[in-house]
Order: sequence, then C-alpha cells, then structure tokens
Amino acid sequence: MGEKNRRWVLTRRPEGNHYSDAVELVDGETPELIDGDVLIRNTYFSLDAGTRMWMGPREDSYSPPTPLGSPIISTVLGSVVTSRHPDFRNGDLVRAYGQWADFSVSRPDEVYVERVSRQLDDPRQHLGVFGANGWTAYLGVLEYGAAQPGETLVVSAASGVTGALAGQIAKQHGCRVVGITGSPEKCDWLTEELGFDAAIDRGAEDFEQTLRNTCPDGIDVYFDNVGGAILDSVLGNMALFGRVAVCGLLVHYDQDEPIPGPTRFDQILMKRLTMRGFFSPDFYHRGPDLNRRMRPWYEQGKLRMTFDVTAGLENTLDAYSKLFTGAKIGKSLVRVGEPDS
Amino acid sequence: MGEKNRRWVLTRRPEGNHYSDAVELVDGETPELIDGDVLIRNTYFSLDAGTRMWMGPREDSYSPPTPLGSPIISTVLGSVVTSRHPDFRNGDLVRAYGQWADFSVSRPDEVYVERVSRQLDDPRQHLGVFGANGWTAYLGVLEYGAAQPGETLVVSAASGVTGALAGQIAKQHGCRVVGITGSPEKCDWLTEELGFDAAIDRGAEDFEQTLRNTCPDGIDVYFDNVGGAILDSVLGNMALFGRVAVCGLLVHYDQDEPIPGPTRFDQILMKRLTMRGFFSPDFYHRGPDLNRRMRPWYEQGKLRMTFDVTAGLENTLDAYSKLFTGAKIGKSLVRVGEPDS
Repeated sequence: MGEKNRRWVLTRRPEGNHYSDAVELVDGETPELIDGDVLIRNTYFSLDAGTRMWMGPREDSYSPPTPLGSPIISTVLGSVVTSRHPDFRNGDLVRAYGQWADFSVSRPDEVYVERVSRQLDDPRQHLGVFGANGWTAYLGVLEYGAAQPGETLVVSAASGVTGALAGQIAKQHGCRVVGITGSPEKCDWLTEELGFDAAIDRGAEDFEQTLRNTCPDGIDVYFDNVGGAILDSVLGNMALFGRVAVCGLLVHYDQDEPIPGPTRFDQILMKRLTMRGFFSPDFYHRGPDLNRRMRPWYEQGKLRMTFDVTAGLENTLDAYSKLFTGAKIGKSLVRVGEPDS
Repeated sequence: MGEKNRRWVLTRRPEGNHYSDAVELVDGETPELIDGDVLIRNTYFSLDAGTRMWMGPREDSYSPPTPLGSPIISTVLGSVVTSRHPDFRNGDLVRAYGQWADFSVSRPDEVYVERVSRQLDDPRQHLGVFGANGWTAYLGVLEYGAAQPGETLVVSAASGVTGALAGQIAKQHGCRVVGITGSPEKCDWLTEELGFDAAIDRGAEDFEQTLRNTCPDGIDVYFDNVGGAILDSVLGNMALFGRVAVCGLLVHYDQDEPIPGPTRFDQILMKRLTMRGFFSPDFYHRGPDLNRRMRPWYEQGKLRMTFDVTAGLENTLDAYSKLFTGAKIGKSLVRVGEPDS
C-alpha cells in the first residue's frame, strides 16, 4: 500500500572517497507510519561533507558511526504528505533530518523537523543561507571567531557554501576577507561576485608566501573548514590573540585512522590563540533568530549563494564524492521530486 | 668601582637539553647606571622552562630568540642597592625581570619591576604562589579553562609549580582534580600533601586506560603544561564542550624544528572543544588583584608550594636541565645572595 520509495542504504564502511561499494540504492515502499511520524516527500536533500564521518569506520567522530543496513541521513527539504504528529499537517513545507531517498520518515519528537515558509523567493535557500550552513557561517564569524570590524578574516573552502557565506557575513561586519579556494576561477568568483577582498588558490606555488603577503599584519580570525596543510600555513601567520573557528576538518573525514595534527600547533601558545570547534546541531534552536538577523543582508543582495544541483536520486554518489575533490562551487543539493513543491 | 658580578651569557644556540656549551658564566663588575636604571642584588632567581625558548634557535616562539652574547633573562627577587629611577629606593624588595647573575640591572620603564612586601612569611612565595606561576595557575583554571564546580580538571606536570598550584586552586573552586606527574612518589605528594583527588604516573603502563578509568565521565578542563603524547591521550578523553588551557608545551621547547601536533587534534571538532594558549606577561598587571584573591587560601594552608632551591649561581645549569627531566618537585629557584635579604 506504500508508495515506491528508493533509499540509499549503508552496506559497508567506505574506503576513502569511494562510495559505490559501500552505499546501495535499495527499492522499497514507504512504510506504515506510527504515531509521532511524519512522511515527507523529499524535494531536495543536502550533500554535506560531515556525512562522510557517519559512514565510518572511525569511532571517535561526533558519535559512533551509522549502523550498517541503515539509510543515509541528511537534511532534506520537502512536503509533508502524511502526518501522524499533531504539530504538522499534510502540505507543510519542512526542513528536517530525513534520508537520501524519495521519501523521508522522521519523528519530530526525536529529530530535527521544522516548518519553513513557502514565501522564500528561492526555496533552496532553506538549505542555503537560511539553514545550517548559514547559521554555521554566522556564528563562526561573529561568536566562535569573535571577528571585529577592521580585522583580517581568512576562510578556507571559501567557494563552498559555508565558507562563501562566512566571507560575505564577515564583509558585512566590516572585516577584511581573504578566501582560500581551489582554482583561479573560484578565486574570481569570490572577489568579483561575492566581494571578497582577496582570494588565494590553495594549489598555487608558494601558497604560504602569498598568504603572508596578503595578510601582512597577520590573520586575526581563521574560519576553518579543512584542517591539514592549509591550517598549518595559517597557524604560521596568525596575529597575536587570533581566533581559529573550526567548523570542519575535511582532510580528516575519510581517514580510517587519526592523522597528525598541525605541525605549528605550538603557535596556539606563542601567539596566545583561541581555537574552537563547533557543530551546527548544537545551535539549530537559534535558527529562527539567526535567520531574522541575516534576512536584511539577503534582501539587499549581500548574501549570495550558488547551488550545484544534481537531478535524480540515482546520481547521488557521484555528486557526493565531488564534495571532497573541490569540483564544485556553492551549495550541493540533490533534487528528488519536482522543484516547485 | 663596580662590585663583582658574575653573569650567565648565551654564547651559542643550545642543542636539546644541553647547556654547558651554550651558556657561559662570565666574570665582570656591575656597570655604571644611567638614569632610569635600578641595580638589584639578586637573592633568588626563577628557573622556568619557557626560558629555553628564548635561547633559540627557533624563530617562531613568543618572539625572536635572545641575541648571542646577551645575559639570560629571568624573574628575580632581590633588593635594590642603587636606584636611578624615581619610583624605587635603595633597600626596596623587588620582583623583576633581571638576569641569571649576582646582580640585575633593570629599567622599570621598559621591563617588569615591582616592589613587593617584606612581610610575607616566606619571601620565596613572591616567586611561587604570589608570582607569575600563581597567576598562570589561577587564570588558567578559572578564566582560560573556565572550570566550574563539580567538573573534572586534569593537570599535567602536576608536581611542577604551576601545575601544583592549578590543581589546588581547582580544588578550592570545587572541581574534581586529577594530576599527571612523573613518578609514584610525586603521585603520593599530590594526593596526600596537596589534596588532589587522584594522580597518575605518566610512565605507568596503560597510562591512557588509567586516565579513562579515572575520568569516566570525560575531562571537562585540561590544564596543559606539556603537549605531546599526554595531550593526545587527554584529547581522546575530553568531555563534550571541554576546555584545554595551554600554558606550556614543554615537549616543544628544545626542538630545533616544529614537531607534529596532536594526532587527536580532530577531537576539537568532534567534542566541540575550546583550546586557548596563554602567557603570563599578558596579565602581570593583574598580579596585585590575583594575589588578593589567593591570599585567603594561602593563609588557610590551602595553597602549598615546595621549593627546590639550588644554592650558588655557579650551579645554575645543572638545576636548569632538571626542569625537563622531571627530576624535581615544586618551584625551582637558584639562591644567589643571603636567604634573608
């Protein structure tokens, strides 16, 4: 009696950035709901680097990895088609923890499910500026990074959604903003389209010298998505009392074993740095307030976001692996249903 | 016309923990003072691990290393014997940046020189509880570590002066305190004499498992003096939203090149940790206030400190190298003049 529902299921722990042996598209039907469930027809779901950690095999990630045989969890945008929860009605547009699937089954009393407006000019922005990436960018710049007007802020993975938003928010706050990204074309996008003061290709020869020349007074705030060699170069160029806001450590995610930390770790002491890790589920409850604060910038065209949309659930894995190769700009989504749901 | 004044002078960059080829005792006389100088007859000077960094050769320490040919700088306690500064008089007892020498020449307008009380029951405490080590301990626990009553605080190098004071301050604040130190005898000193809740010998087999068993709910605050393998073990056992207050990275100080940072660095993200480096010269101006806050605990016998005093300027280097081998307890001083000056 259910509708056809294909789901991506974790069957093995993946190795590195290869998923086809580890995640399988399984045919099935939507289940019978129980009290407290909502059934969501997915329109989009978000592709997030952090999901890689939940696939395992590392046990010392945010929490133990997803059990084998489980569907892959992700933030989805979609319409409630059946509700057995008193706070949700059929037809509600929701942003929720759901599944890489045609439909998501979610329990609002146990996981994040929030009704969102149908009035937004681009509904994808519920998974862009006005979702977890936007909140991470806002708090990373203003609270965890404690950026002050006039300071120099450097952001890595700057052409990814969180990095691009962090840089634009820092600009609105009066910072000098330098992005680190993966190609000359992406550098152009950052400076010409998004208004960054400077952008550096991480693959350029003498990257560290360029970074030093671009930040002659040192780096006051580093918004880090990546870790690894870039973090080391930045640590060698921090200003006294600088802050490092760590929202991601991409280079660690697909490693089976812990890898060495930054060689210039001792600069935390020499420069009296503050380094903080943060993670969006800790502040989802602040989302409505943060969205109110970002809304004016968005309406003035100061918070722009490009979407990299992959059409078709069946194409998810190829799109996913591109998160780790730098082969995209902006927010990566998979479109499952009709775009105007 | 000057008095005889022997001084330890840096003649070469030392290798590792060997100083006899690099630091030389030079005979001379006290110089003619110029306006703004004070001449201090040293009674004690402090042996501090951090001094190793100023010897070089690393350029990326707090500041460039001391030029070759310069005397070794240290905090001293002594009496002003000649003052050409209007705020100081002959006979004043001062704590000051001075030299490893019979006498110090200091310029209070340029370096730290502070008049201190002659009423303290043990004047060595001006270089113990009521000096930079005490301030570092206090702020590391209460501000940089933001320890809360009931939390578990772990401190490394716990039988050194800063670590021992940090643990005692954390106890007064209502924390559960676990010290990491270098021998079973030192463990006994921490638990039996200083009131630590537990102490772990860092050389014990299965150190990390012992740490885990001793902190079953995770470590809320880590007061780190050391870095290296112990930091890694601690990072693997931090509680969610834990704080790491880094006041020293002993294992880095005698390295010519940067060494890898902690392998579990990624736990900063997974546990949403805050790590902060701090350095006592940044808060010397708060010393009088911090001493007022610590005074009641000291008078109640709750802040105890053992001194490891080496008699004779000529014996400085042997005593200094022991800072890095764990062969001492408490605060290391060299006694230069008469103890009752």
